[in-house]
Formats: sequence, C-alpha cells, structure tokens
Amino acid sequence: MANDTLEGKLRRVPRQVSRPTLLDAVEGTLADFLAAQIAALEAIDPALGGMARTTRDLVLAGGKRLRPTFAYWGWRGATGPGEPLDPVLPALAALELMHTFALVHDDVMDESATRRGRPTAHRLFAGQHARAGRLGDSGRFGTTAAILVGDLCLVWADQLLARTPLSTATLFSVRSRYDRMRVEAVAGQYLDVLGESSPQEWSAERALLVARLKTASYTVQRPLQFGLALAGPVDSDIDDAYCRYGQLVGEAFQLRDDLLGVYGDPAVTGKPAGDDLRAGKPTTLLLLARQLAPELALDPAGAVNPADGSGGLTPRSITETGAPDRVEQMIQERVAAAVAILADLPIDGDARTALIELAVRATQRAA
Amino acid sequence: MANDTLEGKLRRVPRQVSRPTLLDAVEGTLADFLAAQIAALEAIDPALGGMARTTRDLVLAGGKRLRPTFAYWGWRGATGPGEPLDPVLPALAALELMHTFALVHDDVMDESATRRGRPTAHRLFAGQHARAGRLGDSGRFGTTAAILVGDLCLVWADQLLARTPLSTATLFSVRSRYDRMRVEAVAGQYLDVLGESSPQEWSAERALLVARLKTASYTVQRPLQFGLALAGPVDSDIDDAYCRYGQLVGEAFQLRDDLLGVYGDPAVTGKPAGDDLRAGKPTTLLLLARQLAPELALDPAGAVNPADGSGGLTPRSITETGAPDRVEQMIQERVAAAVAILADLPIDGDARTALIELAVRATQRAA
Repeated sequence: MANDTLEGKLRRVPRQVSRPTLLDAVEGTLADFLAAQIAALEAIDPALGGMARTTRDLVLAGGKRLRPTFAYWGWRGATGPGEPLDPVLPALAALELMHTFALVHDDVMDESATRRGRPTAHRLFAGQHARAGRLGDSGRFGTTAAILVGDLCLVWADQLLARTPLSTATLFSVRSRYDRMRVEAVAGQYLDVLGESSPQEWSAERALLVARLKTASYTVQRPLQFGLALAGPVDSDIDDAYCRYGQLVGEAFQLRDDLLGVYGDPAVTGKPAGDDLRAGKPTTLLLLARQLAPELALDPAGAVNPADGSGGLTPRSITETGAPDRVEQMIQERVAAAVAILADLPIDGDARTALIELAVRATQRAA
Repeated sequence: MANDTLEGKLRRVPRQVSRPTLLDAVEGTLADFLAAQIAALEAIDPALGGMARTTRDLVLAGGKRLRPTFAYWGWRGATGPGEPLDPVLPALAALELMHTFALVHDDVMDESATRRGRPTAHRLFAGQHARAGRLGDSGRFGTTAAILVGDLCLVWADQLLARTPLSTATLFSVRSRYDRMRVEAVAGQYLDVLGESSPQEWSAERALLVARLKTASYTVQRPLQFGLALAGPVDSDIDDAYCRYGQLVGEAFQLRDDLLGVYGDPAVTGKPAGDDLRAGKPTTLLLLARQLAPELALDPAGAVNPADGSGGLTPRSITETGAPDRVEQMIQERVAAAVAILADLPIDGDARTALIELAVRATQRAA
C-alpha cells in the first residue's frame, strides 16, 4: 500500500525516475557488467565461466535493491530532477554487488539453505560438486566456492564503481563512505554472531548497536551519504540529516525484523517461524523481554520446545512481558523522528516524498 | 646467498632503498594504519577492538612481503632512485593487507591449522570462543570470524590504498591493475580447489594455468605492473616486459613449490612432507609424472600409504618417471628467459639487478 501510494505520487512528477525505471536501470547495468565478466573468465577457463554464471544468477535473483534505492534518493535529493542518471548507475549498481558479497558470506556463516526462495550459493556449488561425482566433501567444496564467489562480488563491486566518471575529490569522498559502510557491515556481522554465542553477556543497548552497524549504516545511512557524495561537493547539513534519518530508519527496520522473527508469517517472511527464538538470538525484543521478566531464559536451552510449546521463551510469554508493545513504540518514535528530520531539509521534493515513504514502508512491512 | 649478494649490491648504490629499509617502512605503514583502525573499532565496542587486534597480529606476523617488494621495484624501475618513497608506501603496504585477506580465506578453505608457524585465524578465534566458554560450536565461530577478518582486511587494503596521493588517471590505472590482480587470485584459487576435487580431469597445462593465475599474476606480474602505474603514465614496453617477466618467474616459483611439496624438508618449508601427494593435488609435477607413466594413479586412493610407503605415487616412483628433472629444466628455462627480458629494458639499474636477483632467489629457495 505504501508502495502504491509512492508509485502514484512518483508518476505525477515530471522528469523523475520512478522506482520501476530505476530498478530496471540498475538491473540492466548489473546484467551488462556481469555478461562482460563471464565472457572474460570463460576465456581463461570454462570452469571459471561456469562459476561466474552461477554468481550472476545469484546477483540477479531479485531482492528489494534497497541500497541502490537509498543511494539514488540521496543523490537525487542534492541534484534535483534534472541530472542524467546514466553516469551514476555503475555506482548505484555496485552497492548491489557488494550486497551479494555480504549475503553469500552471511549464508555460509549461518549455514542457511535458502535465500529469496532459492538455494544459497554454498548449496548450489555443493550440488554441482555432488552431481559431477567429484572427489572430497561436497559441503566443503560448496563453502569454499561460496567464500570465493563472495570475494569476487566484492572485487566486482569495485570494478563497477570505477566506471562512474568522477573527479578525484568526489571519488575520494564516495569511496570513503563506501569503505566506512563495508567496515561497519563486517563489524555488525561480527558482533551479531558474537551475541548469538554469548546471549547472557548481551544487552538491549548492544543489540541496538548491532542494528545500527548491520542495518542502519549498511542499508540506509551510508548508501544515502554515498549517493549524496556522488552529486559532488557535500552539503554538511544534508549529510548530517541523512545520517540521522538513516540511523532512525535502520533501527526501526531492524526492530520490525525482531518482531517478524517471532510473530511473522513464514509464508510472507520466507523464514521459518521462531528462528530467532530457537537460535537464542539476543535481539532487542528478546533482551527487553528478559529485562521486563528476568525469569525468562535467553539461551537455546530456555527456548520454546517445538513439540509442546513449553520452555521459557515463547511468542506468548514474550507478549505477556509487554516487550512487543515497547518495540512497536520504539519503531513509531523512530519513524516519526526520521520524517521530522526531512521536513525542513533543503532537498528535492521528490526525494523528500520518497524518503518519507521508504521510512514508513520499511517499518510497516510484513516481510 | 642471493639475498646477501643483492643486499651487497644495494648498499653500494647511493640514494637507494635497501630491502630491510623498504620492509621496515612497509611494516611501519601497516602498524600505524592498523593502530588507527583498532582504536576506531574499539571505540564502537570493545569486542570489535579485540577482533581488530587479533587481525593486526596476523598481518604483522611476518612473511616475505613479496608483493610490496615487487611493486616497489616495479615503481623504482620507472622512477629511478631520486623519487621519495613515502607517498607510495600506503599503496605498497595495501598489497600486504590484501595478501592477509587471501591467506586467511585460503586457510579457512583448506582447513589449515598453522600459518607461518602460528595458529591460523580461524583456529585463533575458535580458541578464544572455547576459552570464553561461549555457546555453540567453537570451530564454526572460528570459521565465521575468519571469513569476516579476511573481508575486513580486503576493505582495509582499499582504505590504505586511498591514502596514496594520486591523480585521477594514475589512480584509475593503479586500481584497474589491482582489481585484475584480485580477480585473478580468486579465479586461481577456485581452479586450484576444483583441480583437487577432479584430478582425473586435470592436465599439466591446466596446472600451469593455475600457477599463472594464483602465483604469477597475484605475486609477481600485477604487483610489478601496479608499481609501474604508481609511477605515473605507463610506458607500454616496460609494462609488457614486466608482464612477461612476471609470468615466467611466477610459474618458476610455483614449479619450485611443486618440487618442495614432494621433496622439501619439512623443517625448512614448515609444511608436512608429502602434503601434495596425500591431497592428490594435481600439480604440474604430478601430472607430468602421470603423463610419463600413465599407470601411476593420481587420486588420494592411489597416494602413498604413510604406514609402509606403498601405493602408486611415492617420491621415488615420481623421480623414476623423470618428471622432477623435467620440472627443474622448466624452472631454469623460465628464469633464463625472465632474466633475458630484463637485459635491455630501459629501467633503473638497481631495479634490474634486484629483479634478476628476485627471479633467481624465488626459484632456488628451499622453503
């Protein structure tokens, strides 16, 4: 619905790039770039061409393309509707290659079997290995290939970014934001994994820090600031506002994820119900529940028993602590504050509208 | 010995940078950069500071620093002895951070326990996890942390590279060589792992291709060309000569590695004797042996039995095929051709001397 409203508004604005057009342009940029890389690797050895084709399929397998979208509006906010999109498309699309790197490595770390309804990279390569009847453990080959595919996507992202014609100063500014985004994504993932293995040491504050690094910075803040830098010399007021907006929206996004992790409909989220509970994942929601009712355990041993629903942490016992209501309130506060930041910001009107819609949509979603 | 000769020659040259001084400068650049990154991550969360310190120790744990060395001489060949080293030090040191990325991920893929006589990254993090008594499998945590540490080193390398003051055109040229080097390193590692799992499909030509990608390109060719690009507009004759020299020396280096993998002294190489035989690794040496004596098996089932030395492939049975002599000859041919390429090349005399020495030393080494 938020989506329909946004698209409706966008269609009324002249000379703008609607979301489908933007995403089509990003997909096209990715497809052209990947076709060239496949041809180059195929020419070295057919097996490398095969690996590159599997990688292309992973990149083009869909997803919300949130990072290019935020980067686009970050750029558009500063340039207004008149600037041609083509020169910055490689930079916007590079964020999606970087995202494939992060997803492929995350799936190896989490030993996930599916992503976007399809087998994950390491499963795909393990399957190829098994079908070919090769020597050694297929699972181990899959892990190795997926680590390499992730590495390759990160390098490809740099190669695609390099195709954006930018002055030395602008390139320096764009890359420094990109580097910061990548360091924060790695740091967030490390803390996330550490938290899962030491939930008793974790706090709601630390869970929010993970959300800030892993979701806010990586998905919203830095892509917006990266887009702003693409537009040329950076206005520090807009930069600061994007940064604050991004933190609030990213935190709200992660808090919604926490709720979906416990109460989401598996048919909509595409993830098994109760995954966070089973993993004993120290999310803000679960840590607040523990804070409000310290007798609730927060480790896998205290998680819900799928056979009879018994155990310390169940969706119902969490609801009874009042933590979900508190988290809903945190989401609403953050969205309201994010929208307020945009109100007086001297940016393009379409960008303001789109960023407001994105804030609302990101936090009202069911998946 | 080659080393002594080289250092002796270098000491007689005025205004030059001797190898120890160069390596000290690279170490210092790395240490300063890493200290700043540790402080930045520590400020976000103490656990991130701890992770960053472990990573620093891995980077500074030694190694031959071959890539900064080749990049230095590639640069010096074009600039001569008069240019200050300081501005290009971040770029030279960045190659070493990139190398730590490659080693850490390779060790995860190979499940190696030690590197340079110390525990590998994934073992270090697994040990930290176990000692802290955290939840979940320590081995899996170690793997996850090591994948992230590798990723972080790759991003840090970009951040350090960005500190080299370069014009837009020079930066573009430097980065495109760097990107190519990284893609080839990933491609070489993928083919290497694929070859281990399908030795019967492998050929001596394909083993040499792996050597070209994984060793020649990554260790010699691209670092040399990267260094040349750092010096400014690229002379295509020198570029082409560096490329041919690099391929020959890199192949020779890998062929020496093949021989050491079967005949090396574990006390000197630091690797267990007969590792390649046990893994059924399809090296040029073993594939030549199979070509010369097709009755020799080339899979782990046909490898030497450590209990009684029986089995198809033993150091002695390989010697009897004549393959080691053929590989020795291939090494000598390559070194001679590489030295001949340098003979008339219009580069700085010290660079020529050093590159000749490096070619000879890389291929005469015992470890």
